[in-house]
Formats: sequence, C-alpha cells, structure tokens
Amino acid sequence: MRPQDIIAKKRDDGELNDSEIRSFIDGVCDGSWADYQISALIMAMVIRGMSQAEQDSITDAMLHSGEVLDLSGIAKPKADKHSTGGVGDKTSLIIAPVAAACGIAVPMISGRGLGHTGGTLDKLESIPGYRVNLSTDEFHRVIDECGFAMAGQTADIAPADKKIYALRDATATVPCIPLIVASIMSKKLAEGLDALILDVKTGSGAFMPELEGSRALASALVRTGEKFGVRTEAVISDMGQPLGKYVGNALETYECIKILRGEADENMAATTELSLELTARLLVLADVAADVDAARALALAKLNSGEALERSCANIRLQGGDPAVCDNPEVLLGPGLKDVVIRAGSAGYISEIDTFAVGNAIVAIGGGRTRAEDAIDHAVGYASVAAIGDSVSAGDVLGILYCRRDDELAAEQLRNAYRIGEEPVVVPELIKAVV
Amino acid sequence: MRPQDIIAKKRDDGELNDSEIRSFIDGVCDGSWADYQISALIMAMVIRGMSQAEQDSITDAMLHSGEVLDLSGIAKPKADKHSTGGVGDKTSLIIAPVAAACGIAVPMISGRGLGHTGGTLDKLESIPGYRVNLSTDEFHRVIDECGFAMAGQTADIAPADKKIYALRDATATVPCIPLIVASIMSKKLAEGLDALILDVKTGSGAFMPELEGSRALASALVRTGEKFGVRTEAVISDMGQPLGKYVGNALETYECIKILRGEADENMAATTELSLELTARLLVLADVAADVDAARALALAKLNSGEALERSCANIRLQGGDPAVCDNPEVLLGPGLKDVVIRAGSAGYISEIDTFAVGNAIVAIGGGRTRAEDAIDHAVGYASVAAIGDSVSAGDVLGILYCRRDDELAAEQLRNAYRIGEEPVVVPELIKAVV
Repeated sequence: MRPQDIIAKKRDDGELNDSEIRSFIDGVCDGSWADYQISALIMAMVIRGMSQAEQDSITDAMLHSGEVLDLSGIAKPKADKHSTGGVGDKTSLIIAPVAAACGIAVPMISGRGLGHTGGTLDKLESIPGYRVNLSTDEFHRVIDECGFAMAGQTADIAPADKKIYALRDATATVPCIPLIVASIMSKKLAEGLDALILDVKTGSGAFMPELEGSRALASALVRTGEKFGVRTEAVISDMGQPLGKYVGNALETYECIKILRGEADENMAATTELSLELTARLLVLADVAADVDAARALALAKLNSGEALERSCANIRLQGGDPAVCDNPEVLLGPGLKDVVIRAGSAGYISEIDTFAVGNAIVAIGGGRTRAEDAIDHAVGYASVAAIGDSVSAGDVLGILYCRRDDELAAEQLRNAYRIGEEPVVVPELIKAVV
Repeated sequence: MRPQDIIAKKRDDGELNDSEIRSFIDGVCDGSWADYQISALIMAMVIRGMSQAEQDSITDAMLHSGEVLDLSGIAKPKADKHSTGGVGDKTSLIIAPVAAACGIAVPMISGRGLGHTGGTLDKLESIPGYRVNLSTDEFHRVIDECGFAMAGQTADIAPADKKIYALRDATATVPCIPLIVASIMSKKLAEGLDALILDVKTGSGAFMPELEGSRALASALVRTGEKFGVRTEAVISDMGQPLGKYVGNALETYECIKILRGEADENMAATTELSLELTARLLVLADVAADVDAARALALAKLNSGEALERSCANIRLQGGDPAVCDNPEVLLGPGLKDVVIRAGSAGYISEIDTFAVGNAIVAIGGGRTRAEDAIDHAVGYASVAAIGDSVSAGDVLGILYCRRDDELAAEQLRNAYRIGEEPVVVPELIKAVV
C-alpha cells in the first residue's frame, strides 16, 4: 500500500480499515513513511476525525508496534493509574506505594514533563541516585520486592507513539481525542494490566480545559480500556488550581513523602484526597475491595499505618535512590534558593487561578521544559498557599516562589494568575465526575 | 510566528492573513519550517480550503520567494501559454514559434513530465544537443534573436513552489485548486508577462477529469492572472483522448516539426487546431490582433509561410540543438524500436479512450517518469491512429506502440484503454469552453 493512497483516503473523509492503519504504523516504525507523510495523515485524521473502529485499530497497531510486558509470573492483580497531566499533579508517588501496600502490583511506566505540566520521572529524579531506566529484569524484580516499579518508556514500548507524538507536538495536531486515546492506551496496555484508573483533568491547568472535552476523552479512554480487556474507570478531577501545595519536582516529591509520613499540612489535603479516591477506585477495579468505601478505608489504613511509606522507601532503595529522603524529606529542599512571596494586590475572594500560567511560570524559572531535550532544575518551584474560595486581604500571601535569583517576570506571571473578586466563591469540587 | 500557531489556525478553519502566509513561505525557503510542518499545513489547506485572499497571498508570496524576470528591455508584448498537462499535449512547440513569428516575445519556462503526462523540456531534449538550462543572459539573448526561449525552472524562480510541490506529490495533497493556482501562477507571473493563455485540460487524461473541476480551476487561474495585472484567458480543451497523433517525447517533437513544415497527416490535425486556437487567443490578449478570427488568420499565415518553422530552427540552433531535425525530422525517429500494432478486438464505434491508461503505458515502457529523479527513454512512444467516433472492424489498427522489446503488458494496457460500442458516437469537441 502506498502512503499516498492511504493519506488520500483519509483526506477525502474515508474510513481507514485495519490493514491500512497497520500499514501506516508499520511504516512509522520501519521508516518507510517519511515524517512529512506521517504528519499529513495525522492532520487529515485530526480534521476528519476517526471512527471507533479506526481508533481501536490505531491503538492496537501502536500497542503491538513494540513490546508488551509479560507480568503473568506475578500472581497479584496488576493495576496502574494514568493522569492526563496537570500542575502540582503528584498523586503517582502516593498511589503506587499505597496500592502496593494493599496487595496490588503496580508496573508504572511514566513520562517526563513537557510544557506547563510536570512528569513523574522528573519528580522521582529529584531523589539523589534514583534511576528510572530499568531493564525488563530489574523492572520485574523491583515489583516483586516492593510491589511497584516506576520506569520511563523504553524504546521497546510503543515506539510508534514516541515518533508520532514528537511530530504531533511540532505540527499542531495534539488536540484529537482518538490520537490522544491511542497514545495513552498503547503505552498503558503494554503494561499488561488487569485494571486501570484514569485521572482526566479539567480546568485552566488541564490540556483540555473544558469539562465537555474532558468527559469525551474520559469516555473514549474507558471504552478503549474495556475493549482491550482491562477493567477501566476514569475520574474527572479539577485542575482549575494547582493540586495540593507544591509545584516543582523536588518540592512535589517532598510533599508526597510528608503525606506518606503522616506529616501533611492543610495545603496538601487535596493531594491526599485525590490519591485516596483514585487508589480506592483502583482497588475496586482490581477486585481487592468490594466497594469504594471499603477500598478507601483500606487505603487510608495503609497510609496511616506507615506501610505505604515503607513500600516507598523500599522502592527508592531498589531503584538506587538515597533512602535518607524517607527519614528526612527536608534534604529534598535545595539550598541556595530565593523565596519570592507572591501577595494579593487587593482584598476579596480568590475566584480563579490561571493554572496554565502557574505551570508556565515554573517552566520559565527552569523547573520544566519547553522542548523534550531541555534540562531542568529539580529544586525550583512554587508553594501554592491560597486556594480558590479563600478570603484574602491586600498583602496576604498567595504563594511562595522558590527560584535561583529574583525573577520578577515569573513573580508577575504568578501574581497575574490570581483573580480576586468581591463576591464569595463556591469552592470547586475536586472530583467533577466519574466515567 | 511559530509554525504550530499558523498550522493550528488553519486546522481550526481560520483564515490566514497575509503576514502568516508570508511567514510560512519564508519558512519554506529558509528551512525554518520542517518538511513535516509544511505538509501538515498543506493538508489543512487542502481539507479546509482557502479564501480568495489566502490564494492571492500565497501566490504572491511564492512568486516573490524567488527571482522575477525583468524583460522590460524587450519592446514587444511578452506572452506565454501554460497547459495543465495531458497525453500527447505538445502545442508549446508550435505555439511558441508561431506566436514569435507574429511579433510576440515568448519567455517560456516549462517543466518535465511526471506521472502519465509529458513535459515540454523532455520533448525538446529529444533533439540532439538541445539545452534547456539557460542562464538569464542566454535566455534574454535567445528571445532577442528568435522571439522565444524554452527553459527549465531555475532554482531562482519560485523556489518555494519547487519544495512544496515535491511534498504535495508525496503526501496526496495535489488536488487543491488554490494550491494548484499558486503553483502555476507563481511560476508564470515570474516570467514578467503581459498576456497569458491557459490550456486547462478535461477528460480521462487530465489530472482533473471532470469538466466542473476544470472550469473551477480555469476561473481561478484567470482571476489570479488578472489580479496580478496579466491579461489572461483559459481554454478548456478535450483530454478524453491523446492529442493529435503521437505520445512520447521524440515522436511528439517529430509531429510538431512535421506540422511546422506543412507535412502534417490527418491524425495530427487536432494538434494544429488546438495550437492555432491558443495562439490566436494569445495574439488578441497581447493586442497584436483585434479579434480571434483575425488573429487566427495571422497565425495560420505564419505557419503556412514557413516563418514559424524558421523561428523554430533558429531557436534550436541558439539553444544548442542539431538543426538537422528541421530539414529532416525523421532523424528523430530512433532506430532499434519494435512496432507493436494495437488492434480492435471487435467491430463498432470507438466510444471512449482511457487516456490516463495510455499515458501510463508509455511511462511503463520508459517514456515517462513515476518519480522526478527517473531517467527516460526519449524514443519510445505510441502513435494514436483511431480516434473517438471512428468506426472500426475487428482487427483494425487502433495505434502502434514503439518500444524496446515486445512489451505485452503495455500492449494489453493500450488495447484495454479503448472502449468500442455498437452505437455511433458523437465526436467530442476539442474546445469545451473559453473562460
């Protein structure tokens, strides 16, 4: 099949059959499709849309473009969480050890931060020595020993996705639900899971800010998971403000260890709450608990008992990290940072936080990337102190920016991210819907 | 302006403004747009369509991406013909010398054959020694001395078109009227013309086979020519069968010299007819004649007097070709070719000729290219003897294939290209419309 003929069919709003889609994905992997042919077809897919059958075909073809983990040797239920990404979204570091403590095996393959959203691998790498590049053997062994492993996507997992995603980023073809579904699910299905809980973000810091879009994405993801034999559920959660207290890699890891140690402050409550909700639903999907209430009680018990903290420390040790961070998480707080206090310019109620702008401000001071090849500064970040609905006086602390030098531009971006109104504001719900 | 933002605007059906389109074309030329970004935007343009303003902007930006010929030193009216391409379409080799003999300067920049259609440069290169790569100085001098010059597109003429066209060919984004118009007109407008006659083909051998599409393309081309200050007219002519007698480079050149010598046989009549019609309309557009009838009489007189032949011979000499072909065109007929006679399988009236298939059969025996870098065999080709409407008996000659070895596959393709019915057929008009 010539690439041109397949491209022309989609250009003319035709439905590609399974063998045409397979030929495309094969061509992406073996290089017989040029980048400009891939991007032309992708653009046609974005504009023309894709049928259910096309979406299933491309997910399956991308999944089988690479290795699928064989975790059949592990008797426990295999389950994972995936988030569509946000600002301060650090729940993986809590869900994995809590779920592991509840008897689930969690083979978590994560990504790096790009643009305004962070990535789990970067957070983990703020722990001195922590390695996210594990061989398949190591990955199995770490799961065996502590119940979960945290690794980066290898070249063997869904290689077609890696190539296509890089092109989509450069050609304005990211916002397309079938392609997003194929990208997420081809990687998650490669983990060989029994159950998957999805955290689909909505609001100003989500890459799909409107609830309607988030809902459509959630439905498509759940349908695809179920279609491929994985019990799947999606929670649509609020990304209208940073999640919990900290934004920034080391700071977020610090927050998670504080939570696991039972030392969370009130600004960290949303992180704990969302982590418990997602873990509880995962336990039900994985048949470890009968209902969400029972599952939540179990998860909370494992958190409070310190068993989750133990799992986390064991994992850090096994993946080469310095376990001192478990006993003394303050070592994560880098020296040599300047604190810039962000204060309210007027009195009133915080009605909105432009979370996209908050994420971008942290990228601007080095805490994130605009291009995949950028290096990052793990230590810098932001403490979000005031939340939507809070009543503030002029001069009250909204948050604290931790940066290398007085960065007035980033501080200005952060100040401008807050909208303060005169009327009281209803505190937004953390969980908007379950799909 | 980031490529992604411009691509996203068109993806979402926005109208690109002049500076966005200019930024795109600049990026094509300076390499700051990657091929995959160019092809993503082009696909969005094909699917979303382009407004009149966008079409004018892209034509202008492509035109000014390179050199525009300055022929102001030539006092005569400057005029040219452009054809959208066909099978056996060889009128340039007659129109240029006839128009030159009528007092017009013809700065003709042509292309090579690709796919089922031939190209003027390939036909000319079947003349031993003929050079189509002329410097700007040579190009001027040749026009000065014989009234017309025939050259290939240099790297300096509309370089953006060259790059974009190659990508369009590989990404199934050729059929898009605004992009076709921009591609054709950016090159023709670079010739610095006063008048332009367009030959828009319709029928089974045209790249736009339906009359409706040809008409839309013709209107868009004429509108653009006028908009850029060039008096422009389009003739929609029949490509439902090969034009005139021969298909194949040397054979087509032979046919033209026979016509210029007044030695045409009846199978060549359509070539003469279409050439005279296009020349006549060009003479009117260039203010050399008052109306088409007067212009036609003038053109015919120059053909019959041998003045056009003289111009052609002078041009061949000036561009390095062997002028012996003018006195003895038979030298063009290569030795060592096999004649394979294509015969009617049944009696009846020829109702259709799949001209696309005829063109492809000649490509298959080496007379054309499937890729721009392919070499071609100038000598091979086809003599089309029977035309639509002809009554034939089983075994009558439909045509003769001239090839290097018995090529049964090409012969079969040619036989299958003819549809013979029982009912008499109305002979199709050569000129379908004038726009």
